[in-house]
Amino acid sequence: MKYNRAFNRSCTQLRNFEIIRNFTSQAVGSVFIKAGDTYVLCTATIVENVPDFMKKQKDCGWVTAEYSMLPAATHIRSNRESVYGKQTGRSHEIQRFIGRSIRSMFDLSLLGSRTIHFDCDVIQADGGTRCASITGACIAAFDAVSYLIDNGFINKNPIFNYIAAVSVGKVGDKLLLDMDYTEDCNCDVDMNVVMDAKGRFVEIQATGEKSLFSMNDMNDMIVLAQEGISKLINLQKECFS
Amino acid sequence: MKYNRAFNRSCTQLRNFEIIRNFTSQAVGSVFIKAGDTYVLCTATIVENVPDFMKKQKDCGWVTAEYSMLPAATHIRSNRESVYGKQTGRSHEIQRFIGRSIRSMFDLSLLGSRTIHFDCDVIQADGGTRCASITGACIAAFDAVSYLIDNGFINKNPIFNYIAAVSVGKVGDKLLLDMDYTEDCNCDVDMNVVMDAKGRFVEIQATGEKSLFSMNDMNDMIVLAQEGISKLINLQKECFS
Amino acid sequence: MKYNRAFNRSCTQLRNFEIIRNFTSQAVGSVFIKAGDTYVLCTATIVENVPDFMKKQKDCGWVTAEYSMLPAATHIRSNRESVYGKQTGRSHEIQRFIGRSIRSMFDLSLLGSRTIHFDCDVIQADGGTRCASITGACIAAFDAVSYLIDNGFINKNPIFNYIAAVSVGKVGDKLLLDMDYTEDCNCDVDMNVVMDAKGRFVEIQATGEKSLFSMNDMNDMIVLAQEGISKLINLQKECFS
Amino acid sequence: MKYNRAFNRSCTQLRNFEIIRNFTSQAVGSVFIKAGDTYVLCTATIVENVPDFMKKQKDCGWVTAEYSMLPAATHIRSNRESVYGKQTGRSHEIQRFIGRSIRSMFDLSLLGSRTIHFDCDVIQADGGTRCASITGACIAAFDAVSYLIDNGFINKNPIFNYIAAVSVGKVGDKLLLDMDYTEDCNCDVDMNVVMDAKGRFVEIQATGEKSLFSMNDMNDMIVLAQEGISKLINLQKECFS
Amino acid sequence: MKYNRAFNRSCTQLRNFEIIRNFTSQAVGSVFIKAGDTYVLCTATIVENVPDFMKKQKDCGWVTAEYSMLPAATHIRSNRESVYGKQTGRSHEIQRFIGRSIRSMFDLSLLGSRTIHFDCDVIQADGGTRCASITGACIAAFDAVSYLIDNGFINKNPIFNYIAAVSVGKVGDKLLLDMDYTEDCNCDVDMNVVMDAKGRFVEIQATGEKSLFSMNDMNDMIVLAQEGISKLINLQKECFS
Amino acid sequence: MKYNRAFNRSCTQLRNFEIIRNFTSQAVGSVFIKAGDTYVLCTATIVENVPDFMKKQKDCGWVTAEYSMLPAATHIRSNRESVYGKQTGRSHEIQRFIGRSIRSMFDLSLLGSRTIHFDCDVIQADGGTRCASITGACIAAFDAVSYLIDNGFINKNPIFNYIAAVSVGKVGDKLLLDMDYTEDCNCDVDMNVVMDAKGRFVEIQATGEKSLFSMNDMNDMIVLAQEGISKLINLQKECFS
Repeated sequence: MKYNRAFNRSCTQLRNFEIIRNFTSQAVGSVFIKAGDTYVLCTATIVENVPDFMKKQKDCGWVTAEYSMLPAATHIRSNRESVYGKQTGRSHEIQRFIGRSIRSMFDLSLLGSRTIHFDCDVIQADGGTRCASITGACIAAFDAVSYLIDNGFINKNPIFNYIAAVSVGKVGDKLLLDMDYTEDCNCDVDMNVVMDAKGRFVEIQATGEKSLFSMNDMNDMIVLAQEGISKLINLQKECFS
Repeated sequence: MKYNRAFNRSCTQLRNFEIIRNFTSQAVGSVFIKAGDTYVLCTATIVENVPDFMKKQKDCGWVTAEYSMLPAATHIRSNRESVYGKQTGRSHEIQRFIGRSIRSMFDLSLLGSRTIHFDCDVIQADGGTRCASITGACIAAFDAVSYLIDNGFINKNPIFNYIAAVSVGKVGDKLLLDMDYTEDCNCDVDMNVVMDAKGRFVEIQATGEKSLFSMNDMNDMIVLAQEGISKLINLQKECFS
Repeated sequence: MKYNRAFNRSCTQLRNFEIIRNFTSQAVGSVFIKAGDTYVLCTATIVENVPDFMKKQKDCGWVTAEYSMLPAATHIRSNRESVYGKQTGRSHEIQRFIGRSIRSMFDLSLLGSRTIHFDCDVIQADGGTRCASITGACIAAFDAVSYLIDNGFINKNPIFNYIAAVSVGKVGDKLLLDMDYTEDCNCDVDMNVVMDAKGRFVEIQATGEKSLFSMNDMNDMIVLAQEGISKLINLQKECFS
Repeated sequence: MKYNRAFNRSCTQLRNFEIIRNFTSQAVGSVFIKAGDTYVLCTATIVENVPDFMKKQKDCGWVTAEYSMLPAATHIRSNRESVYGKQTGRSHEIQRFIGRSIRSMFDLSLLGSRTIHFDCDVIQADGGTRCASITGACIAAFDAVSYLIDNGFINKNPIFNYIAAVSVGKVGDKLLLDMDYTEDCNCDVDMNVVMDAKGRFVEIQATGEKSLFSMNDMNDMIVLAQEGISKLINLQKECFS
Repeated sequence: MKYNRAFNRSCTQLRNFEIIRNFTSQAVGSVFIKAGDTYVLCTATIVENVPDFMKKQKDCGWVTAEYSMLPAATHIRSNRESVYGKQTGRSHEIQRFIGRSIRSMFDLSLLGSRTIHFDCDVIQADGGTRCASITGACIAAFDAVSYLIDNGFINKNPIFNYIAAVSVGKVGDKLLLDMDYTEDCNCDVDMNVVMDAKGRFVEIQATGEKSLFSMNDMNDMIVLAQEGISKLINLQKECFS
Repeated sequence: MKYNRAFNRSCTQLRNFEIIRNFTSQAVGSVFIKAGDTYVLCTATIVENVPDFMKKQKDCGWVTAEYSMLPAATHIRSNRESVYGKQTGRSHEIQRFIGRSIRSMFDLSLLGSRTIHFDCDVIQADGGTRCASITGACIAAFDAVSYLIDNGFINKNPIFNYIAAVSVGKVGDKLLLDMDYTEDCNCDVDMNVVMDAKGRFVEIQATGEKSLFSMNDMNDMIVLAQEGISKLINLQKECFS
């Protein structure tokens, strides 16, 4: 039995992705990524400073992320977090997830005593915003590092490899790759996977809030995620060719 | 004596403007406006509700604006207002300015008991962000009203006319139209003007923090602003042709 | 046709002003100003420190303002901003306006590495609070500077000249000088003007939220403002005679 | 051995008090009280509403207080609480103390379903601000109640009696009535007493942070407070004669 | 090669667990859980209300969690979140994790229009606080539901099954079950697993911030987690025997 | 006429007290105190730093307290202060009261340039939480000081004596020692007393919000408090025997 997806997509098919480098010119990395109707602007900016907890590790850098949605990013306008006075718990959770993932790309001891900030601002949200943020921020990371090397701030490349992220969901007995918002709301199990180019895991988060899941479910979902991520990393590599 | 402006611009010349309608699809109005290196996303969203202070005026609507800069919009990364816990005084001042200007376009009694929110998010800042916000939000306002009319929510058009905004500065004895960030930092007198298509004023704000100015200065600056605004309103009209 | 104003005031007449210097004794400048039923306490205090963004300019000082209304200042009690947890957008906008205006009086390079804080606390509000704040703070500025000179902290007077502020409104085809709260609520165009003793502009803010206005309107309003400000500066000078 | 007090005051002497009723005209009670160099504006405003926790008690009113110091009230400028984003613990403690005291004057069941807000704003602080607040707010309470009776909102007077407050301190083996700021900083034991016209207690707070104290100390301090409060209540009564 | 763990624990051994029901008497569920030196108080309280987003689903309940650490829970005192003015991102992330997990135990449609709050307050932290919170809150959930059934608020038991949580870490090529704080800081891969009594997954979160990991790693870690959770669920069941 | 108290307590009888030292192991002082159904965890932690206002007094330490209730401490769940965004006025008032009391135990000049933080977290509240906090924190203070002496951080004991606190209430013409929550809600006069082992006062706070009280009332209440405190200090001393 076929699951009907928007735009006639098959269950194992990614949405249309578009990755625009240098969307703005003042940030050292600035990537506008479209995953279907999900649009995220991922910028990298450098501050010549590290947080207090990193200061004891001499010459070591730091990498961190912030995530936010514009109020009009969703069908129903959401409150602006700065007006409300604080970030939502959801934003906190997501930006910590993005931060850990992007940090895994780096050998911080090669970065020097500086911080790269990754700002992932969701311009329009149709599901999968945290995954698009990571996939886009990875490109911005490469551009930020090129800037540091080209301008003589660092000598050795602190980045190991490409990473990308994708969601997989289970609805009934169907698995869906790269869910949009409607699919995400209706799925029984929801998994976000971050991997590198060699298929190694950076992060896995799977939640069965509506329905528990078995080891087999998980293995099937991971296989599907792996295929999607492999395609996304190819798209990333094309940005630099 | 000629004043050297970036890109060989003359003192009375606008920057290159680009206005993209329907930049996103979920907001009823969504305009991406570029004024040189200043990029602002202006969205209009509708909430079927009005603030408490408008509730006593039956069937009357409300129009309001919020303004914010993305952290990476400027050369030096600024703090995210939601992380800091509140909007800056500058954001407050600017969004009140935008709100008053856009509100002047509307006959609120024809809008019904609903609020149109204009969110002006600065994607990149190179001076003139409040003016670009108003010029862009004007287009989003037309699109929001078309949505309301096309879907039968209202019968009569509550919008009177086009409005647009531009800055004029005085440096020494030179007047500069549509200043970029560097010019803005160095000018003696700074004026922001909002006008309609007939050259009538919506708002004027002029400040001589570094150097007082005379009635003649002001008249000259207004004449220059008028020319710029007239060109901007032509650009706006082309969006709908 | 005559416009009926409270207390039989003519359209071009200021309210009764009273300016009390040294209202309190601990602040180096402390001015209680009454503009009809609008009462504002304007104090100047000195802190031997400048904000971070001024630290690179050696020996240069800073001037800043804060504005707030007491909860019982208005007919309907307003929330205390400290209980609500933040200043309103209106307070932000007004204190930035006051700060720019008072700053224009000073040659900051003659002030030494210190900050003068101007606190404008509205004890009772009946329209024109931002203008009364500026007119009162100007006197407090003179007193603060005298303190600095008399105690040998600075040698040269960093203040150029007197400044004062007044509002002008347009209701139908009538112009009103120095509006009270009721007039302010009902006017079509609202202008606040800050000028020095020689009739030069410090700030102009004019807003036609309810009705657009022409260049002629503006010129007429400015002439009326000029007359009012000239009288206010005479009142200021009498304080020191 | 005599203790040297400012202005040659004896140990058992109050400072000069001045109580000005109707200092402003928009609040139903508005009392400016001077206790030496301590100035407090105490206003009473009425809101036709009660807090949620009082809603189950039908037709019962509420009385509450807020306390704040203007930034320039003290010799060293203090931060504005609304800019800092919250009230200090000291303000919280004091306004709760004032609120309980003023509430004790009222039979809330005779007030109807409304709240009287007492705002005590310290214009200048030289010790004893919480006591001056209570002594002044008591007068504002009488004026607020007169307003309610005169306008037919209530029929029976909900106020029982006058109350006033004073501080007593112990320095070495000396007792000081009505301490100013310098005395307050240097005393070993600090007591604030609120009493009614018949010498009954409303509140006692005594603290021996620097030095413990005996039952005898306390009794002596209370006797001294009683004398001071009796004089203050006479001053209050003169306001209405 | 053996890995040296505190208290001579083997790599696959849980810490000593102690679960005390009814630790306090006012909450309907109150469980004090000790996992080695990690102590968490998990309480369940019932509010006869649901959040706005659940109101459209008639008679449906809600389950939510809050998590916080006491300032002295860690070796170095941490700031109290209420003094700082907001919860940390870490607290947000963890309480969302706990909330989703406990929610998975419930058929919300059988709960009636009420909310069960699970408050997980860490009395002492030595690693694994989020897992101990879930394991303890599961017991509190049973007690809360018994209260609802025993008092006739609901008829059918809305809880499906027991759940428990445990951490597994990878250090070099060693896997460690139920890590303490020191182990958690030093591990390469960190996984938190929530399962039910039948070995089905509720949540998996695995992060390789310091070192990526393979599918084999993950499978081995899950097997180890499964053994631990099975023992924890036996401990839970003993609480009711 | 006898007053009926829970558990058949007489009017002059304390509740059952239990004091557990070393409840947790990471804080240098950790006391769990039970006063009937009121449970408070009082911890002492040391930070090698003093607040700014103490920095000018060389080698002088500081002692401070924070107080909070867990959300489920009361019969009706209260909001978590960190979620609400700030501490309540009640928490502020109480923690200042605790801080002053514990500070009176210390000769701060013997503490060295460090701060001892006393965190009083109410695990369950049934009246008298501030008094139980002080009685428990006193024990934690002794343990913190022993730690400092035993580890050679200080040479001389900075603590003078034991202190303890108890409440006394007046209901009609009855006096009640150590009130529980129900008694506290219904009493006419409420007094909290802090004393040392020799019967000297540290703090007295008495409030007659519902009914004024005489000097005789106060004396009787103090005598009763003295008896209770004397017993509590015996319990404290037993902790160390």
